[in-house]
Amino acid sequence: MDVRAQRCPRTVRDRAGRRTLALVDTGLGAPARVARPGEPIGPDELRLATRNHGMPLEALRYDVTPPGLHYVLVHYDIPYVEPGGWRLTVDGAVRRPVALTAAELRARPRRTLRVTLECAGNGRARLEPRPVSQPWLDEAVGTADWTGTPLAALLRDVGLPDGAHTVVFTGADHGTERGVEQDYQRALPLVEAMRPEVLLADTMNGAPLPPQHGFPLRLVVPGWYGMAHVKWLREITVLTGEFDGFQNAVAYRLKDRAEDAGEPVTRIRPRALLAPPGYPDFMSRIRVVAPGSHLLSGRAWSGTGPVVRVLFSAGGDWTDAELGPVAGHWAWREFRVPWWAEPGSYQLSVRAIDATGRAQPVEPPWNVQGMANNMAQRVPVVVPPGGGHGAP
Amino acid sequence: MDVRAQRCPRTVRDRAGRRTLALVDTGLGAPARVARPGEPIGPDELRLATRNHGMPLEALRYDVTPPGLHYVLVHYDIPYVEPGGWRLTVDGAVRRPVALTAAELRARPRRTLRVTLECAGNGRARLEPRPVSQPWLDEAVGTADWTGTPLAALLRDVGLPDGAHTVVFTGADHGTERGVEQDYQRALPLVEAMRPEVLLADTMNGAPLPPQHGFPLRLVVPGWYGMAHVKWLREITVLTGEFDGFQNAVAYRLKDRAEDAGEPVTRIRPRALLAPPGYPDFMSRIRVVAPGSHLLSGRAWSGTGPVVRVLFSAGGDWTDAELGPVAGHWAWREFRVPWWAEPGSYQLSVRAIDATGRAQPVEPPWNVQGMANNMAQRVPVVVPPGGGHGAP
Repeated sequence: MDVRAQRCPRTVRDRAGRRTLALVDTGLGAPARVARPGEPIGPDELRLATRNHGMPLEALRYDVTPPGLHYVLVHYDIPYVEPGGWRLTVDGAVRRPVALTAAELRARPRRTLRVTLECAGNGRARLEPRPVSQPWLDEAVGTADWTGTPLAALLRDVGLPDGAHTVVFTGADHGTERGVEQDYQRALPLVEAMRPEVLLADTMNGAPLPPQHGFPLRLVVPGWYGMAHVKWLREITVLTGEFDGFQNAVAYRLKDRAEDAGEPVTRIRPRALLAPPGYPDFMSRIRVVAPGSHLLSGRAWSGTGPVVRVLFSAGGDWTDAELGPVAGHWAWREFRVPWWAEPGSYQLSVRAIDATGRAQPVEPPWNVQGMANNMAQRVPVVVPPGGGHGAP
Repeated sequence: MDVRAQRCPRTVRDRAGRRTLALVDTGLGAPARVARPGEPIGPDELRLATRNHGMPLEALRYDVTPPGLHYVLVHYDIPYVEPGGWRLTVDGAVRRPVALTAAELRARPRRTLRVTLECAGNGRARLEPRPVSQPWLDEAVGTADWTGTPLAALLRDVGLPDGAHTVVFTGADHGTERGVEQDYQRALPLVEAMRPEVLLADTMNGAPLPPQHGFPLRLVVPGWYGMAHVKWLREITVLTGEFDGFQNAVAYRLKDRAEDAGEPVTRIRPRALLAPPGYPDFMSRIRVVAPGSHLLSGRAWSGTGPVVRVLFSAGGDWTDAELGPVAGHWAWREFRVPWWAEPGSYQLSVRAIDATGRAQPVEPPWNVQGMANNMAQRVPVVVPPGGGHGAP
């Protein structure tokens, strides 16, 4: 069984292997590119931005992100999956391949985990120059209670041979990306797939998965960026070798130049986000904050270890925020920080540090595909003199 | 009681009426503008596009838009409303002002209506030159079953004096817009507010309103663009005169020049949208469609009358689509149209016509604020020769 994506850059081949259309001439299948210095958002980035959406940052007030406010990133279309005909196939290098119905999966042991999910491209549009893709600022995040059956036990049940090495997850979403026609596929090293907290989730916040979050089944890999949490999951394939499909070998890589192999994107880097205080201006999103005393709040998370420190600055020194209780190992942690607002203009900023010592940078960590940019948030704020016009 | 928005362009005044900050210097309170010819999307438009989101057009397959896929447009922040302390105040020119709890509202007569809602700014980013605001393409739409109590009966119960003329609806969302600090407020002429299908809705698709759709209460005005359906509703004020608040007098107007008074934006103009066929390219969103026979489908709606005709073109003549059953007076109507796809590149297009004879234009109806642009959708499609590479 060939689980690798077909590679046919700039052309499409038919079943006989003949080249068909030079699709790059149509704008389809164009190679990845980096915007010119100062180049604004293009029509292709806008089309993605009107489909996919972040979490409005005022929703940082919720421990669990309410329905519809969790970020969504869909590579192709949201597929329609008829639940009656759907099966999860587990095959490849396994002793007893199976095809399970949704009811059979629900009858297996179940576990609920609160997990903060973040897109690997979060922060991309804050890079300069900007890699051209989904143009996230800071908001591609959300936290949900995911319920499902642990993957490890299912893999043990189907029987892993010596030499099993990689697990490939295939979704029902289909499209082309840089000339490569593919079902969305991502692989995990077996050792990651066997972590006890990796779930095959059919439930989000107590309800069936919404279509855009992977109905009827998605993978949840706590601590990893969103590309690993394959939605509309239909097949799990165990390999004895490596997987060189597009999303692992090409798309989600940290590299300085397009021609480099680079390093795989894996776990979420630390990030803190402030719930923006005061009230906004519609168009600029600048915040108006009353002078005086404020207790600011936000959330911080990391996939490499618990957040142990959050720093705050209004332009001067960095001061420590007060951390709330740890909300499980995989979910964001609330923080609060008092701020005395004097009249003037500010850029409020926060930085998370996790237990491994990893800290958010102030300058962006540039790479050619704009992955994992966890540079510190900046919230522009105006504090008018006097508190008399309703500024909260 | 002053229900009018405070007008203080370019400055904020404190309670004593003194000018405070010239906020325009900070980027806050800048006047509306139209992009230069060819000017790409700016950072301000991108910030709005990452917060607000359209309905991915593959969701046109659903009669009722699933949770989280309905379009969302929030002018300021999504406010947090504590349901226990919340009241709906009905006051102004009424005989018996009241303040109702959520339970008191739920005890009133209830009605459920299926309503298609569309943002008045839908289509704005397809105008040339482009008015700078939320940059919608075609996707700011959704359909829900809204349940609540009819407004007309409540207004009759509080007693309308002779001369009652206008009803103002005030939400809990607060911000500044072009230098005007305001709670979001919109007024309806009394005759529109008394239509039997205007609801005070606390339920969307059988569940409490999500935060981003107006929890705990929103107005639903079937047939009107979204700006009339005030979310986070907290006050209803009857006036004997006109309302000249920002959102009625300035923002939602059809006008050729900024200095004109223009005409108010009211009812939804006819529009049809195709569910894009085949599968997409990630970045360009161009569709790949297999050669041969296809049954295309989509939805069409209008606020001025039932859709009676949908026309389809793949670049040549316009042909009639087949209309599905009417799904109530205020919801979109499904259509289907067969298409024989020959290899090549196409712009698929559809146009709705309603019972009043209003028809979607092929050229955009330009106005300085980019309102109600219902120009026909164009779906770029590539049909490769041969059907052999999985194109659906």
